[in-house]
Amino acid sequence: MDSLKELDERHRQFVIDRNWQQHQSPKNLVMALTGEVGELNELFMWLTVEESRKIEGETKQAVAEELADVLIYLTRIAGELDIDLVAAAHEKCEINERKYPADAFQDKPLRPHEYKNQHK
Amino acid sequence: MDSLKELDERHRQFVIDRNWQQHQSPKNLVMALTGEVGELNELFMWLTVEESRKIEGETKQAVAEELADVLIYLTRIAGELDIDLVAAAHEKCEINERKYPADAFQDKPLRPHEYKNQHK
Amino acid sequence: MDSLKELDERHRQFVIDRNWQQHQSPKNLVMALTGEVGELNELFMWLTVEESRKIEGETKQAVAEELADVLIYLTRIAGELDIDLVAAAHEKCEINERKYPADAFQDKPLRPHEYKNQHK
Amino acid sequence: MDSLKELDERHRQFVIDRNWQQHQSPKNLVMALTGEVGELNELFMWLTVEESRKIEGETKQAVAEELADVLIYLTRIAGELDIDLVAAAHEKCEINERKYPADAFQDKPLRPHEYKNQHK
Repeated sequence: MDSLKELDERHRQFVIDRNWQQHQSPKNLVMALTGEVGELNELFMWLTVEESRKIEGETKQAVAEELADVLIYLTRIAGELDIDLVAAAHEKCEINERKYPADAFQDKPLRPHEYKNQHK
Repeated sequence: MDSLKELDERHRQFVIDRNWQQHQSPKNLVMALTGEVGELNELFMWLTVEESRKIEGETKQAVAEELADVLIYLTRIAGELDIDLVAAAHEKCEINERKYPADAFQDKPLRPHEYKNQHK
Repeated sequence: MDSLKELDERHRQFVIDRNWQQHQSPKNLVMALTGEVGELNELFMWLTVEESRKIEGETKQAVAEELADVLIYLTRIAGELDIDLVAAAHEKCEINERKYPADAFQDKPLRPHEYKNQHK
Repeated sequence: MDSLKELDERHRQFVIDRNWQQHQSPKNLVMALTGEVGELNELFMWLTVEESRKIEGETKQAVAEELADVLIYLTRIAGELDIDLVAAAHEKCEINERKYPADAFQDKPLRPHEYKNQHK
Protein backbone atom coordinates (compact mmCIF):
# COMPACT_ATOMS: atom_id res chain seq x y z
CA MET A 1 0.00 0.00 0.00
CA ASP A 2 2.89 2.36 0.65
CA SER A 3 3.86 2.63 -3.00
CA LEU A 4 0.27 3.52 -3.93
CA LYS A 5 0.06 6.04 -1.09
CA GLU A 6 3.26 7.65 -2.27
CA LEU A 7 1.95 7.78 -5.81
CA ASP A 8 -1.28 9.41 -4.67
CA GLU A 9 0.64 11.95 -2.58
CA ARG A 10 2.74 12.89 -5.58
CA HIS A 11 -0.24 13.34 -7.84
CA ARG A 12 -2.23 15.20 -5.19
CA GLN A 13 0.64 17.66 -4.81
CA PHE A 14 0.81 18.03 -8.60
CA VAL A 15 -2.88 18.96 -8.54
CA ILE A 16 -2.49 21.44 -5.66
CA ASP A 17 0.46 23.14 -7.40
CA ARG A 18 -1.80 23.82 -10.40
CA ASN A 19 -4.89 24.92 -8.45
CA TRP A 20 -6.90 22.03 -9.78
CA GLN A 21 -8.34 20.74 -6.49
CA GLN A 22 -11.82 22.10 -7.09
CA HIS A 23 -12.06 20.13 -10.36
CA GLN A 24 -10.90 16.83 -8.86
CA SER A 25 -14.21 15.65 -7.46
CA PRO A 26 -14.78 11.89 -7.50
CA LYS A 27 -17.42 12.37 -10.20
CA ASN A 28 -15.01 14.24 -12.49
CA LEU A 29 -12.20 11.80 -11.71
CA VAL A 30 -14.41 8.85 -12.71
CA MET A 31 -14.86 10.52 -16.10
CA ALA A 32 -11.10 11.10 -16.37
CA LEU A 33 -10.49 7.43 -15.52
CA THR A 34 -13.03 6.46 -18.18
CA GLY A 35 -11.20 8.55 -20.75
CA GLU A 36 -7.96 6.65 -20.10
CA VAL A 37 -9.74 3.30 -20.26
CA GLY A 38 -11.12 4.40 -23.63
CA GLU A 39 -7.58 5.00 -24.87
CA LEU A 40 -6.60 1.55 -23.59
CA ASN A 41 -9.43 0.05 -25.65
CA GLU A 42 -8.17 1.87 -28.73
CA LEU A 43 -4.79 0.19 -28.36
CA PHE A 44 -6.36 -3.29 -28.26
CA MET A 45 -9.47 -3.00 -30.44
CA TRP A 46 -8.10 -4.36 -33.73
CA LEU A 47 -5.61 -6.81 -32.21
CA THR A 48 -6.37 -10.50 -32.14
CA VAL A 49 -6.45 -12.15 -28.72
CA GLU A 50 -3.10 -13.79 -29.54
CA GLU A 51 -1.49 -10.50 -30.60
CA SER A 52 -2.68 -8.90 -27.37
CA ARG A 53 -0.59 -11.41 -25.41
CA LYS A 54 2.67 -10.45 -27.06
CA ILE A 55 2.65 -6.74 -27.60
CA GLU A 56 6.05 -5.06 -27.33
CA GLY A 57 8.04 -2.00 -28.37
CA GLU A 58 6.11 1.21 -28.92
CA THR A 59 2.73 -0.40 -28.36
CA LYS A 60 3.85 -1.85 -25.02
CA GLN A 61 5.13 1.59 -24.03
CA ALA A 62 1.79 3.13 -25.00
CA VAL A 63 -0.10 0.50 -23.01
CA ALA A 64 2.12 1.13 -19.98
CA GLU A 65 1.29 4.85 -20.16
CA GLU A 66 -2.44 4.21 -20.30
CA LEU A 67 -2.29 1.71 -17.43
CA ALA A 68 -0.32 4.34 -15.51
CA ASP A 69 -3.01 6.95 -16.14
CA VAL A 70 -5.69 4.54 -14.96
CA LEU A 71 -3.70 3.83 -11.78
CA ILE A 72 -3.17 7.54 -11.11
CA TYR A 73 -6.88 8.39 -11.38
CA LEU A 74 -7.84 5.24 -9.49
CA THR A 75 -5.66 6.17 -6.51
CA ARG A 76 -6.93 9.77 -6.75
CA ILE A 77 -10.57 8.61 -6.46
CA ALA A 78 -9.72 6.30 -3.56
CA GLY A 79 -7.72 9.10 -1.93
CA GLU A 80 -10.55 11.62 -2.24
CA LEU A 81 -13.01 9.15 -0.71
CA ASP A 82 -10.63 7.79 1.92
CA ILE A 83 -10.88 4.23 0.61
CA ASP A 84 -8.04 1.72 1.13
CA LEU A 85 -7.73 0.34 -2.39
CA VAL A 86 -5.60 -2.72 -1.66
CA ALA A 87 -7.69 -3.74 1.35
CA ALA A 88 -10.83 -3.37 -0.76
CA ALA A 89 -9.25 -5.53 -3.46
CA HIS A 90 -8.46 -8.33 -1.02
CA GLU A 91 -12.03 -8.22 0.30
CA LYS A 92 -13.25 -8.50 -3.27
CA CYS A 93 -10.94 -11.49 -3.83
CA GLU A 94 -12.55 -13.24 -0.86
CA ILE A 95 -16.02 -12.58 -2.25
CA ASN A 96 -14.96 -13.99 -5.63
CA GLU A 97 -13.31 -17.03 -4.05
CA ARG A 98 -16.59 -17.90 -2.34
CA LYS A 99 -18.73 -17.03 -5.36
CA TYR A 100 -16.78 -19.29 -7.72
CA PRO A 101 -15.70 -22.36 -5.65
CA ALA A 102 -12.57 -23.87 -7.23
CA ASP A 103 -14.02 -27.40 -6.97
CA ALA A 104 -16.74 -26.55 -9.46
CA PHE A 105 -14.21 -25.99 -12.24
CA GLN A 106 -11.99 -29.05 -11.92
CA ASP A 107 -13.76 -31.41 -14.31
CA LYS A 108 -15.59 -29.10 -16.65
CA PRO A 109 -14.22 -25.88 -18.12
CA LEU A 110 -16.71 -23.08 -17.49
CA ARG A 111 -16.16 -19.38 -17.91
CA PRO A 112 -17.62 -17.05 -15.24
CA HIS A 113 -20.76 -16.24 -17.24
CA GLU A 114 -21.34 -19.90 -18.08
CA TYR A 115 -21.04 -20.85 -14.40
CA LYS A 116 -23.44 -18.07 -13.44
CA ASN A 117 -25.96 -19.18 -16.10
CA GLN A 118 -25.90 -22.72 -14.69
CA HIS A 119 -26.34 -21.52 -11.10
CA LYS A 120 -28.95 -18.82 -11.35
CA MET B 1 4.82 -2.29 -5.42
CA ASP B 2 4.89 -5.32 -3.14
CA SER B 3 1.27 -4.95 -2.13
CA LEU B 4 0.23 -4.82 -5.79
CA LYS B 5 2.45 -7.78 -6.63
CA GLU B 6 0.90 -9.78 -3.81
CA LEU B 7 -2.58 -8.84 -5.02
CA ASP B 8 -1.76 -9.92 -8.55
CA GLU B 9 -0.30 -13.20 -7.30
CA ARG B 10 -3.49 -13.92 -5.37
CA HIS B 11 -5.74 -13.19 -8.30
CA ARG B 12 -3.53 -15.09 -10.73
CA GLN B 13 -3.75 -18.17 -8.49
CA PHE B 14 -7.52 -17.71 -8.28
CA VAL B 15 -7.61 -17.79 -12.08
CA ILE B 16 -5.36 -20.86 -12.35
CA ASP B 17 -7.48 -22.75 -9.79
CA ARG B 18 -10.52 -22.25 -12.04
CA ASN B 19 -8.82 -23.03 -15.35
CA TRP B 20 -9.44 -19.55 -16.65
CA GLN B 21 -5.92 -18.72 -17.86
CA GLN B 22 -6.77 -19.10 -21.54
CA HIS B 23 -9.49 -16.46 -21.23
CA GLN B 24 -7.32 -13.91 -19.43
CA SER B 25 -5.63 -12.36 -22.43
CA PRO B 26 -4.84 -8.65 -22.16
CA LYS B 27 -7.54 -7.94 -24.75
CA ASN B 28 -10.22 -9.73 -22.75
CA LEU B 29 -8.96 -8.22 -19.49
CA VAL B 30 -9.25 -4.70 -20.95
CA MET B 31 -12.92 -5.44 -21.67
CA ALA B 32 -13.38 -6.76 -18.13
CA LEU B 33 -11.75 -3.61 -16.75
CA THR B 34 -14.09 -1.54 -18.93
CA GLY B 35 -17.09 -3.35 -17.52
CA GLU B 36 -16.09 -2.41 -13.98
CA VAL B 37 -15.48 1.20 -14.97
CA GLY B 38 -18.98 1.20 -16.44
CA GLU B 39 -20.39 0.12 -13.07
CA LEU B 40 -18.42 2.90 -11.41
CA ASN B 41 -20.02 5.41 -13.78
CA GLU B 42 -23.46 4.07 -12.85
CA LEU B 43 -22.78 4.84 -9.19
CA PHE B 44 -21.89 8.47 -9.96
CA MET B 45 -24.02 9.37 -12.99
CA TRP B 46 -26.95 11.06 -11.25
CA LEU B 47 -24.96 12.51 -8.34
CA THR B 48 -24.07 16.18 -8.28
CA VAL B 49 -20.39 17.01 -8.09
CA GLU B 50 -20.88 17.99 -4.44
CA GLU B 51 -22.67 14.75 -3.56
CA SER B 52 -19.86 12.79 -5.17
CA ARG B 53 -17.44 14.27 -2.64
CA LYS B 54 -19.31 12.98 0.39
CA ILE B 55 -20.66 9.58 -0.44
CA GLU B 56 -20.82 7.20 2.49
CA GLY B 57 -22.52 4.06 3.80
CA GLU B 58 -23.75 1.57 1.22
CA THR B 59 -22.79 3.73 -1.74
CA LYS B 60 -19.23 4.11 -0.44
CA GLN B 61 -19.04 0.36 0.03
CA ALA B 62 -20.28 -0.15 -3.54
CA VAL B 63 -17.71 2.33 -4.87
CA ALA B 64 -14.94 0.57 -2.94
CA GLU B 65 -15.93 -2.73 -4.55
CA GLU B 66 -15.84 -1.28 -8.05
CA LEU B 67 -12.49 0.44 -7.45
CA ALA B 68 -11.24 -2.91 -6.16
CA ASP B 69 -12.40 -4.65 -9.35
CA VAL B 70 -10.65 -2.04 -11.45
CA LEU B 71 -7.42 -2.51 -9.48
CA ILE B 72 -7.60 -6.29 -9.78
CA TYR B 73 -7.98 -6.22 -13.56
CA LEU B 74 -5.42 -3.43 -13.89
CA THR B 75 -2.76 -5.46 -12.05
CA ARG B 76 -3.78 -8.54 -14.06
CA ILE B 77 -3.18 -6.70 -17.37
CA ALA B 78 0.15 -5.34 -16.12
CA GLY B 79 1.09 -8.80 -14.84
CA GLU B 80 0.29 -10.50 -18.15
CA LEU B 81 2.36 -7.94 -20.06
CA ASP B 82 5.18 -7.75 -17.53
CA ILE B 83 4.70 -4.03 -16.94
CA ASP B 84 5.71 -2.38 -13.65
CA LEU B 85 2.58 -0.36 -12.92
CA VAL B 86 3.93 1.92 -10.20
CA ALA B 87 7.14 2.68 -12.11
CA ALA B 88 5.05 3.50 -15.19
CA ALA B 89 2.84 5.80 -13.09
CA HIS B 90 5.85 7.73 -11.79
CA GLU B 91 7.17 8.11 -15.33
CA LYS B 92 3.76 9.46 -16.34
CA CYS B 93 3.84 11.91 -13.42
CA GLU B 94 7.15 13.27 -14.70
CA ILE B 95 5.70 13.72 -18.18
CA ASN B 96 2.70 15.57 -16.73
CA GLU B 97 4.88 17.74 -14.51
CA ARG B 98 6.79 18.93 -17.57
CA LYS B 99 3.69 19.22 -19.76
CA TYR B 100 1.86 21.46 -17.30
CA PRO B 101 4.52 23.67 -15.64
CA ALA B 102 3.28 24.77 -12.21
CA ASP B 103 4.34 28.39 -12.88
CA ALA B 104 1.77 28.73 -15.62
CA PHE B 105 -1.11 28.25 -13.18
CA GLN B 106 -0.16 30.60 -10.36
CA ASP B 107 -1.93 33.75 -11.53
CA LYS B 108 -4.72 32.47 -13.72
CA PRO B 109 -6.85 29.44 -13.02
CA LEU B 110 -6.80 27.18 -16.06
CA ARG B 111 -8.07 23.64 -16.34
CA PRO B 112 -5.94 21.16 -18.34
CA HIS B 113 -8.01 21.50 -21.52
CA GLU B 114 -8.02 25.31 -21.25
CA TYR B 115 -4.24 25.33 -20.86
CA LYS B 116 -3.87 23.02 -23.86
CA ASN B 117 -6.17 25.22 -25.98
CA GLN B 118 -4.03 28.24 -25.19
CA HIS B 119 -0.79 26.44 -26.02
CA LYS B 120 -1.57 24.50 -29.16
CA MET C 1 -34.82 3.38 -39.23
CA ASP C 2 -34.07 4.11 -42.87
CA SER C 3 -31.57 6.84 -42.07
CA LEU C 4 -29.71 4.46 -39.74
CA LYS C 5 -29.80 1.67 -42.31
CA GLU C 6 -28.39 4.01 -44.94
CA LEU C 7 -25.65 5.07 -42.54
CA ASP C 8 -24.73 1.48 -41.79
CA GLU C 9 -24.67 0.63 -45.49
CA ARG C 10 -22.29 3.51 -46.14
CA HIS C 11 -19.92 2.52 -43.35
CA ARG C 12 -20.11 -1.18 -44.26
CA GLN C 13 -19.06 -0.32 -47.82
CA PHE C 14 -16.24 1.86 -46.45
CA VAL C 15 -15.03 -1.16 -44.51
CA ILE C 16 -15.28 -3.53 -47.47
CA ASP C 17 -13.36 -1.10 -49.70
CA ARG C 18 -10.46 -1.21 -47.23
CA ASN C 19 -10.50 -4.97 -46.63
CA TRP C 20 -11.31 -4.51 -42.97
CA GLN C 21 -14.27 -6.93 -42.72
CA GLN C 22 -12.33 -9.61 -40.87
CA HIS C 23 -11.47 -7.12 -38.11
CA GLN C 24 -15.04 -5.87 -37.66
CA SER C 25 -16.30 -8.58 -35.35
CA PRO C 26 -18.86 -7.48 -32.75
CA LYS C 27 -16.23 -7.98 -30.04
CA ASN C 28 -13.75 -5.67 -31.74
CA LEU C 29 -16.49 -3.16 -32.59
CA VAL C 30 -17.54 -2.99 -28.93
CA MET C 31 -13.96 -1.99 -28.08
CA ALA C 32 -13.98 0.62 -30.86
CA LEU C 33 -17.27 1.99 -29.53
CA THR C 34 -15.73 2.11 -26.06
CA GLY C 35 -12.78 4.10 -27.36
CA GLU C 36 -15.11 6.75 -28.77
CA VAL C 37 -17.10 6.89 -25.53
CA GLY C 38 -13.80 7.45 -23.73
CA GLU C 39 -13.11 10.46 -25.95
CA LEU C 40 -16.59 11.77 -25.18
CA ASN C 41 -15.79 11.53 -21.45
CA GLU C 42 -12.60 13.50 -22.02
CA LEU C 43 -14.60 16.37 -23.50
CA PHE C 44 -16.88 16.55 -20.46
CA MET C 45 -14.69 15.49 -17.52
CA TRP C 46 -13.65 18.90 -16.22
CA LEU C 47 -16.83 20.77 -17.16
CA THR C 48 -19.39 21.62 -14.52
CA VAL C 49 -22.87 20.24 -15.03
CA GLU C 50 -24.02 23.73 -16.02
CA GLU C 51 -21.21 24.21 -18.53
CA SER C 52 -22.08 20.86 -20.08
CA ARG C 53 -25.55 22.21 -20.94
CA LYS C 54 -24.27 25.10 -23.00
CA ILE C 55 -21.24 23.95 -24.90
CA GLU C 56 -20.81 25.55 -28.28
CA GLY C 57 -18.26 26.38 -30.97
CA GLU C 58 -15.25 24.07 -31.27
CA THR C 59 -16.24 21.96 -28.28
CA LYS C 60 -19.71 21.37 -29.68
CA GLN C 61 -18.17 20.38 -33.00
CA ALA C 62 -15.85 17.95 -31.18
CA VAL C 63 -18.79 16.47 -29.24
CA ALA C 64 -20.77 16.06 -32.49
CA GLU C 65 -17.86 14.13 -33.99
CA GLU C 66 -17.61 11.77 -31.02
CA LEU C 67 -21.38 11.20 -30.95
CA ALA C 68 -21.13 10.46 -34.67
CA ASP C 69 -18.40 7.88 -34.07
CA VAL C 70 -20.50 6.23 -31.37
CA LEU C 71 -23.49 6.07 -33.72
CA ILE C 72 -21.38 4.61 -36.53
CA TYR C 73 -20.00 1.79 -34.38
CA LEU C 74 -23.39 1.23 -32.74
CA THR C 75 -25.10 0.70 -36.09
CA ARG C 76 -22.17 -1.47 -37.21
CA ILE C 77 -22.60 -3.79 -34.19
CA ALA C 78 -26.35 -3.95 -34.71
CA GLY C 79 -25.80 -4.57 -38.44
CA GLU C 80 -23.33 -7.41 -37.83
CA LEU C 81 -25.73 -9.08 -35.39
CA ASP C 82 -28.89 -8.38 -37.40
CA ILE C 83 -30.49 -6.41 -34.58
CA ASP C 84 -33.10 -3.70 -35.29
CA LEU C 85 -31.74 -0.88 -33.14
CA VAL C 86 -34.75 1.41 -33.12
CA ALA C 87 -37.20 -1.42 -32.46
CA ALA C 88 -34.98 -2.58 -29.58
CA ALA C 89 -34.93 0.96 -28.20
CA HIS C 90 -38.72 1.21 -28.21
CA GLU C 91 -38.96 -2.15 -26.44
CA LYS C 92 -36.53 -0.82 -23.84
CA CYS C 93 -38.65 2.30 -23.42
CA GLU C 94 -41.66 0.12 -22.64
CA ILE C 95 -39.67 -1.80 -20.03
CA ASN C 96 -38.55 1.47 -18.44
CA GLU C 97 -42.05 2.92 -18.49
CA ARG C 98 -43.31 -0.06 -16.51
CA LYS C 99 -40.27 -0.19 -14.21
CA TYR C 100 -40.57 3.46 -13.18
CA PRO C 101 -44.33 4.23 -13.05
CA ALA C 102 -44.87 7.96 -13.59
CA ASP C 103 -47.32 8.16 -10.66
CA ALA C 104 -44.57 7.33 -8.19
CA PHE C 105 -42.69 10.53 -9.01
CA GLN C 106 -45.43 13.14 -8.89
CA ASP C 107 -45.18 14.17 -5.24
CA LYS C 108 -41.63 13.35 -4.32
CA PRO C 109 -38.58 13.91 -6.47
CA LEU C 110 -36.63 10.66 -6.70
CA ARG C 111 -33.78 9.86 -9.02
CA PRO C 112 -33.72 6.35 -10.59
CA HIS C 113 -31.27 4.94 -8.03
CA GLU C 114 -33.21 6.46 -5.14
CA TYR C 115 -36.44 4.91 -6.41
CA LYS C 116 -34.72 1.54 -6.80
CA ASN C 117 -33.29 1.73 -3.28
CA GLN C 118 -36.76 2.36 -1.87
CA HIS C 119 -38.29 -0.52 -3.83
CA LYS C 120 -35.77 -3.32 -3.48
CA MET D 1 -33.56 10.83 -38.81
CA ASP D 2 -37.29 10.76 -38.13
CA SER D 3 -37.13 7.45 -36.32
CA LEU D 4 -34.38 8.79 -34.07
CA LYS D 5 -36.27 12.02 -33.46
CA GLU D 6 -39.37 10.05 -32.52
CA LEU D 7 -37.31 7.92 -30.14
CA ASP D 8 -35.81 10.98 -28.50
CA GLU D 9 -39.25 12.59 -28.13
CA ARG D 10 -40.56 9.46 -26.42
CA HIS D 11 -37.66 9.28 -23.99
CA ARG D 12 -37.73 13.01 -23.32
CA GLN D 13 -41.41 12.76 -22.38
CA PHE D 14 -40.59 9.77 -20.15
CA VAL D 15 -38.04 11.94 -18.37
CA ILE D 16 -40.42 14.90 -17.99
CA ASP D 17 -43.17 12.65 -16.59
CA ARG D 18 -40.78 11.59 -13.80
CA ASN D 19 -39.35 15.03 -13.05
CA TRP D 20 -35.88 13.97 -14.07
CA GLN D 21 -35.05 16.87 -16.41
CA GLN D 22 -32.68 18.56 -13.99
CA HIS D 23 -30.54 15.40 -13.80
CA GLN D 24 -30.32 14.90 -17.56
CA SER D 25 -27.44 17.24 -18.27
CA PRO D 26 -25.11 16.20 -21.09
CA LYS D 27 -22.40 15.50 -18.51
CA ASN D 28 -24.62 13.12 -16.54
CA LEU D 29 -25.95 11.54 -19.72
CA VAL D 30 -22.40 10.80 -20.91
CA MET D 31 -21.85 8.88 -17.67
CA ALA D 32 -25.13 7.02 -18.16
CA LEU D 33 -24.08 6.14 -21.72
CA THR D 34 -20.75 4.92 -20.36
CA GLY D 35 -22.52 2.68 -17.87
CA GLU D 36 -24.43 0.97 -20.68
CA VAL D 37 -21.28 0.56 -22.75
CA GLY D 38 -19.70 -1.08 -19.71
CA GLU D 39 -22.54 -3.62 -19.63
CA LEU D 40 -22.01 -4.27 -23.33
CA ASN D 41 -18.35 -5.01 -22.63
CA GLU D 42 -19.37 -7.48 -19.92
CA LEU D 43 -21.44 -9.43 -22.46
CA PHE D 44 -18.46 -9.78 -24.82
CA MET D 45 -15.41 -9.88 -22.56
CA TRP D 46 -14.91 -13.66 -22.30
CA LEU D 47 -16.18 -14.51 -25.80
CA THR D 48 -13.76 -15.34 -28.57
CA VAL D 49 -13.89 -13.14 -31.64
CA GLU D 50 -15.59 -16.00 -33.50
CA GLU D 51 -18.22 -16.52 -30.79
CA SER D 52 -18.97 -12.80 -30.85
CA ARG D 53 -20.04 -13.13 -34.50
CA LYS D 54 -22.72 -15.72 -33.81
CA ILE D 55 -24.37 -14.87 -30.54
CA GLU D 56 -28.04 -15.74 -30.37
CA GLY D 57 -30.89 -16.50 -27.96
CA GLU D 58 -30.70 -14.89 -24.52
CA THR D 59 -27.30 -13.33 -25.14
CA LYS D 60 -28.49 -11.71 -28.36
CA GLN D 61 -31.54 -10.38 -26.52
CA ALA D 62 -29.26 -8.97 -23.79
CA VAL D 63 -26.99 -7.34 -26.39
CA ALA D 64 -30.03 -5.80 -28.13
CA GLU D 65 -31.12 -4.28 -24.81
CA GLU D 66 -27.70 -2.74 -24.15
CA LEU D 67 -27.43 -1.38 -27.70
CA ALA D 68 -30.92 0.09 -27.18
CA ASP D 69 -29.79 1.79 -23.97
CA VAL D 70 -26.76 3.23 -25.73
CA LEU D 71 -28.97 4.57 -28.55
CA ILE D 72 -31.44 6.11 -26.08
CA TYR D 73 -28.74 8.01 -24.19
CA LEU D 74 -26.95 8.91 -27.41
CA THR D 75 -30.07 10.53 -28.86
CA ARG D 76 -30.74 12.20 -25.48
CA ILE D 77 -27.28 13.83 -25.49
CA ALA D 78 -27.68 14.94 -29.10
CA GLY D 79 -31.18 16.22 -28.30
CA GLU D 80 -30.00 18.23 -25.29
CA LEU D 81 -27.22 19.81 -27.35
CA ASP D 82 -29.28 20.28 -30.51
CA ILE D 83 -26.93 18.15 -32.61
CA ASP D 84 -28.17 16.31 -35.72
CA LEU D 85 -26.72 12.86 -35.08
CA VAL D 86 -27.15 11.35 -38.52
CA ALA D 87 -25.83 14.43 -40.31
CA ALA D 88 -22.81 14.41 -37.98
CA ALA D 89 -22.25 10.73 -38.74
CA HIS D 90 -22.25 11.33 -42.49
CA GLU D 91 -19.77 14.19 -42.04
CA LYS D 92 -17.57 11.83 -40.04
CA CYS D 93 -17.82 9.23 -42.82
CA GLU D 94 -16.52 11.79 -45.28
CA ILE D 95 -13.59 12.60 -43.02
CA ASN D 96 -12.76 8.90 -42.68
CA GLU D 97 -13.08 8.31 -46.41
CA ARG D 98 -10.46 11.00 -47.03
CA LYS D 99 -8.25 9.94 -44.12
CA TYR D 100 -8.02 6.33 -45.27
CA PRO D 101 -8.01 6.41 -49.10
CA ALA D 102 -9.36 3.09 -50.42
CA ASP D 103 -6.50 2.81 -52.94
CA ALA D 104 -3.96 2.43 -50.15
CA PHE D 105 -5.49 -0.85 -48.99
CA GLN D 106 -5.90 -2.74 -52.26
CA ASP D 107 -2.58 -4.55 -52.37
CA LYS D 108 -1.53 -4.77 -48.75
CA PRO D 109 -3.84 -5.51 -45.86
CA LEU D 110 -3.37 -2.81 -43.22
CA ARG D 111 -5.52 -2.17 -40.18
CA PRO D 112 -6.27 1.49 -39.31
CA HIS D 113 -3.51 1.71 -36.69
CA GLU D 114 -1.00 0.06 -38.98
CA TYR D 115 -1.83 2.52 -41.76
CA LYS D 116 -1.50 5.43 -39.32
CA ASN D 117 1.88 4.15 -38.10
CA GLN D 118 3.15 4.03 -41.67
CA HIS D 119 1.89 7.53 -42.45
CA LYS D 120 2.81 9.57 -39.39
